[in-house]
Amino acid sequence: MHRTKVRVATDALDANDTIAAANRADFDRAGVKVVNLMSAPGAGKTTLLEYALSDGIDGVRVGVLEGDVQGRLDADRLSVLHVPVTQLNTDNGFGGECHLDANMVRSALPEIALDEIDMLLIENVGNLVCPAEFRVGEDARAMVASVAEGEDKPLKYPLMFRTCELVIVNKIDLLPYVDFDMEHFLANLDAVNPDAEHVLVSARTGEGVHLVRDWLSEVAAREASPA
Amino acid sequence: MHRTKVRVATDALDANDTIAAANRADFDRAGVKVVNLMSAPGAGKTTLLEYALSDGIDGVRVGVLEGDVQGRLDADRLSVLHVPVTQLNTDNGFGGECHLDANMVRSALPEIALDEIDMLLIENVGNLVCPAEFRVGEDARAMVASVAEGEDKPLKYPLMFRTCELVIVNKIDLLPYVDFDMEHFLANLDAVNPDAEHVLVSARTGEGVHLVRDWLSEVAAREASPA
Repeated sequence: MHRTKVRVATDALDANDTIAAANRADFDRAGVKVVNLMSAPGAGKTTLLEYALSDGIDGVRVGVLEGDVQGRLDADRLSVLHVPVTQLNTDNGFGGECHLDANMVRSALPEIALDEIDMLLIENVGNLVCPAEFRVGEDARAMVASVAEGEDKPLKYPLMFRTCELVIVNKIDLLPYVDFDMEHFLANLDAVNPDAEHVLVSARTGEGVHLVRDWLSEVAAREASPA
Repeated sequence: MHRTKVRVATDALDANDTIAAANRADFDRAGVKVVNLMSAPGAGKTTLLEYALSDGIDGVRVGVLEGDVQGRLDADRLSVLHVPVTQLNTDNGFGGECHLDANMVRSALPEIALDEIDMLLIENVGNLVCPAEFRVGEDARAMVASVAEGEDKPLKYPLMFRTCELVIVNKIDLLPYVDFDMEHFLANLDAVNPDAEHVLVSARTGEGVHLVRDWLSEVAAREASPA
């Protein structure tokens, strides 16, 4: 009797990619475009979503998946917008996971009515490192960078800035009050990701938020493509 | 013939604690007090250190260990202060580690002249989740929270706020320009860590930075105690 040994070469990130592809296939089948929205803590993802979704995105039915270590503060904030919001906590009883991964998102899929939405916005855990390492089945990645964080961030967290196609520079209403050199920031961004688009917004005043809505509309209208 | 099975029950965090204790023993032997300084990206750790160390901390010889995913921007900023600065990068060729752990700090010890300093300030990677999970051999933990990040952060990242004895509320010069309710923030902090001290500072204007210096002096004067 012969035994055939099959060597399975896999690691945590390979496994993540496998599950991300499965998520993506489910999203594609449902005709749902998925955006993975990332940032540092307090950069303004939720406030941006509050503003961007308050008037709706024309003709696009949006759902939100809220990733947080603990609590449902952000989900509660967004629930007044009449968009379906699903909370996903990464807390495992200790410090919690610092990012969403494909399997966590997969575990939330039964809670999301994919047939009732055209686009799923995934608000990742606030962190500029690990979320960038884990695909979750998204069509596009965007990140929010606040001018209060300083212009050196693309150089210090290069993978995050490199893997996002859109960088939303937020809190521009604070520009007169912080030492933030926009030209220097954009040069740093260009150094790590010359293909990145960027928009300047204030999620507090609403300035420029229509540019984020335009981008989301554009993503929603894209042809489905292989993950 | 009998075989004795010894079950070794250990996991990554156990191993980390073992190495942290070894670091701590080395620091104690050298008479060096160690502070683990943490925050979200861009909260102002480096600017605070620039200001706090520019005039020195009376009678205390300070060294800095700079943790970053990539680059040595912060180490370069601090090098003008004439304090010994050691750069520790967590970049492993992909996204990099999102925190310092005890073994990384241990790997840097040969580069640090412990006999020439009384206090080592470890500037951790900017992240509100994982750094709180990994002790590195420190005597005390402090964190910087920027008012630009919003008052909900203690509730969203409870372990970080719970494991720090000092919370440095930074960028108070921005208070007139951001929606930050200090009373609400302090109530949230109290809810997760009623024992935490806090100080209000602006690392940009220097307001309140002497309170951080006072705290560092107090830590430097503490008796060595078991890790």
